[in-house]
Amino acid sequence: MSMVNAFTSEDFERLDAADRALIARREKVLGPAYRLFYERPLHLVRGEGVFLYDAAGERYLDAYNNVASLGHCHPRVVEAITRQTAILNTHTRYLHEGIVDYAEALTATFPAGLAQAMFTCTGSEANDLAVRIARYVTGGTGIIATELAYHGLTGAVAEFSPSLGDAVTLGPHVRTVPAPDSYRGAPGEAMERFGRDVAAAIADLKRHGIRPAMLIADSIFSSDGIFAGPEGFLKPAVEAIHAAGGLFVADEVQPGFGRTGEAMWGFERHGVSPDMVTLGKPMGNGYPMAGLVLRPEVIAGFGPNARYFNTFGGNPVAAAAGRAVLDTIREEGLQENALQVGRHLADGLKDLAGRHAAIGDVRGAGLFVGVEIVSDRAEKRADAALTTRIVNGLRDRRVLISAAGPRANVLKIRPPLVFSRENADTLVAALDDVLRAR
Amino acid sequence: MSMVNAFTSEDFERLDAADRALIARREKVLGPAYRLFYERPLHLVRGEGVFLYDAAGERYLDAYNNVASLGHCHPRVVEAITRQTAILNTHTRYLHEGIVDYAEALTATFPAGLAQAMFTCTGSEANDLAVRIARYVTGGTGIIATELAYHGLTGAVAEFSPSLGDAVTLGPHVRTVPAPDSYRGAPGEAMERFGRDVAAAIADLKRHGIRPAMLIADSIFSSDGIFAGPEGFLKPAVEAIHAAGGLFVADEVQPGFGRTGEAMWGFERHGVSPDMVTLGKPMGNGYPMAGLVLRPEVIAGFGPNARYFNTFGGNPVAAAAGRAVLDTIREEGLQENALQVGRHLADGLKDLAGRHAAIGDVRGAGLFVGVEIVSDRAEKRADAALTTRIVNGLRDRRVLISAAGPRANVLKIRPPLVFSRENADTLVAALDDVLRAR
Repeated sequence: MSMVNAFTSEDFERLDAADRALIARREKVLGPAYRLFYERPLHLVRGEGVFLYDAAGERYLDAYNNVASLGHCHPRVVEAITRQTAILNTHTRYLHEGIVDYAEALTATFPAGLAQAMFTCTGSEANDLAVRIARYVTGGTGIIATELAYHGLTGAVAEFSPSLGDAVTLGPHVRTVPAPDSYRGAPGEAMERFGRDVAAAIADLKRHGIRPAMLIADSIFSSDGIFAGPEGFLKPAVEAIHAAGGLFVADEVQPGFGRTGEAMWGFERHGVSPDMVTLGKPMGNGYPMAGLVLRPEVIAGFGPNARYFNTFGGNPVAAAAGRAVLDTIREEGLQENALQVGRHLADGLKDLAGRHAAIGDVRGAGLFVGVEIVSDRAEKRADAALTTRIVNGLRDRRVLISAAGPRANVLKIRPPLVFSRENADTLVAALDDVLRAR
Repeated sequence: MSMVNAFTSEDFERLDAADRALIARREKVLGPAYRLFYERPLHLVRGEGVFLYDAAGERYLDAYNNVASLGHCHPRVVEAITRQTAILNTHTRYLHEGIVDYAEALTATFPAGLAQAMFTCTGSEANDLAVRIARYVTGGTGIIATELAYHGLTGAVAEFSPSLGDAVTLGPHVRTVPAPDSYRGAPGEAMERFGRDVAAAIADLKRHGIRPAMLIADSIFSSDGIFAGPEGFLKPAVEAIHAAGGLFVADEVQPGFGRTGEAMWGFERHGVSPDMVTLGKPMGNGYPMAGLVLRPEVIAGFGPNARYFNTFGGNPVAAAAGRAVLDTIREEGLQENALQVGRHLADGLKDLAGRHAAIGDVRGAGLFVGVEIVSDRAEKRADAALTTRIVNGLRDRRVLISAAGPRANVLKIRPPLVFSRENADTLVAALDDVLRAR
């Protein structure tokens, strides 16, 4: 499976000389594993709020990047990082107020019970640690994830990240279940079906002598095609894994920190109670930090025996950045903004769907929106080629999104949470223009 | 195996009220997996150069932290992080000069052939990626590491990090070999013995139907007890793994970036030619960043098929911090300083050994020094209890080190590379005082 929206060498000759030279240097020194976005890659030099600027001074509306969730270079986070970097940056084997203050503030945003935090540097490391803990506490090894899930790229996590493609093999103790496709599935059946699929995966693990350790789900099912699902639909699946002695891990690397609008954490929309929650991307608005929030009983056995240390994880600068992010989300009302602007954006896109038959579905939650592009609405036939043209057509109109999904035909719209109604209107108008121009 | 130099609850009542309160809050919110150093943990608030300052304003000479390798809060790195954080911090799927400039500057410090760089956030991630690549390119799964190695804490890497203790099981495809103990082993035999042990491990893997993927070694053998080994001693081992179709991975997370004094990279002291080199800790002087430098032929197959992306790895701020670190090492002559001050320190410690029978051995390279503490020199009997008293006695005298090794009796001295002769003298005098006072 090739990457959606990747620059390919066939587009190389169409670029200007400066970009060709930089790409050649880059490929020589970074090698063949790295990818660039877009047929004409973006050469960025500056970011501010919802805007990114390229080397030629052109301004782009960023409707894709969920790391700079408060907007690029948010002054409050920049200030926090700058201040603490100049004062002290050590590790968690010394006492420091910062990490304790931050961990308290972070866990306070979770439902009661999810009371302890552990810090890593990346979402991959957070999910990797979740696996280690789940296997330790359950004594099982089996893992259930969705068919096109992405949970990270460490060796252990890549084993249950099928979206990495065929060259990265799934682990023998991994079973996948279809994501809850609210577009192609029969309406109203998602809850029952997902629960049934998870129960079947558990049964299959057991049939192979594998004890289940955990079910992991990104509650927005991002790489699966962006399904926010009917609220509450995760319940039977979570009950099934608990009944089998496994844990439920909510991967909030994408939906977390207010993005879904309706709640601070994506799993809250489903009324389920995770045993562990993994966090990442927007946690430090770009500072490399991630983590895990969990029930104390889950770590009670692992902790004393298999101590945990991460050289950079939870360092004083990360704590300062993380705290600034939490404070800003609250004080700027970004979760509420995600809800309101997300609805406005979805309304605009649905309105567009009335005029363009290529838009098969508009879905999502808050400022995480998927738009399914089809060549035939009745047949729901995916149109990956048009999707690529739309993504690149928007880039030419200086609006940045990408695409996802098993058929590479779902526009992935995931802007910074400071996105305004006006920004949403700009995006919708640009999409309208691309669809008219084709 | 419990952690060397860990604070334990039995010391709790001896602390002052403020520290007790902070520790109680910390344990409640971070859980039982985190550890603190020293019988009386350090509550730090500020760092500058080779000094750390606690909440009471006391100043400590830092002879332990290898992350802030240029000194705590080095102004040049602070400035680089500050500047770039305020301008742009995105990811590697956009073109950016910073990562290309940095990768070129970094690979230029390596012998020819090690020409490509990939970026992660932690040393664990770097070693994890090295395993994935080694397994892909060799088709094997077997891994050989030393008996008390620490290479990181992802699930895949913890499998060959025996120093994590018995609660973290080794992988079934992992074999360990004794580290080259230059103190207890017969002198002059280290090279032959290590090569023979690796060959035997390879044979054992094959006997179990496991094809070898890689040999990984930290050329300073830090957690194994700090053995810099006779120069060149790694050669037969590297030849053996290559002959078996496996790769040699040099873990430079600890010895790299000039610490060994004699070379920029620890493996260079041994005249061997790694296929991959993993980097971490001091790479950004505290900014969370790490990576891999490798031969292009190693990644040629993996890269196009199993693409690589790390959200924060190689971002513009990391590139700026990394570049400032490389420039500072060169312009301040820190490798040369590590060599000269390291020799001065070793001389001072050897002189001390003439007066204190508890010092059984002084070894290391540059500013990575191990001091073996024994209760009987002739018998080379390890004295872990005295080692603990020394580490805490130095802490009471405001000099920070720690301890390591299979017998928990090796003082681990690993100061920032800006350590001066005067700093070394302070350390030696304090150690003399602790040994006199016992």
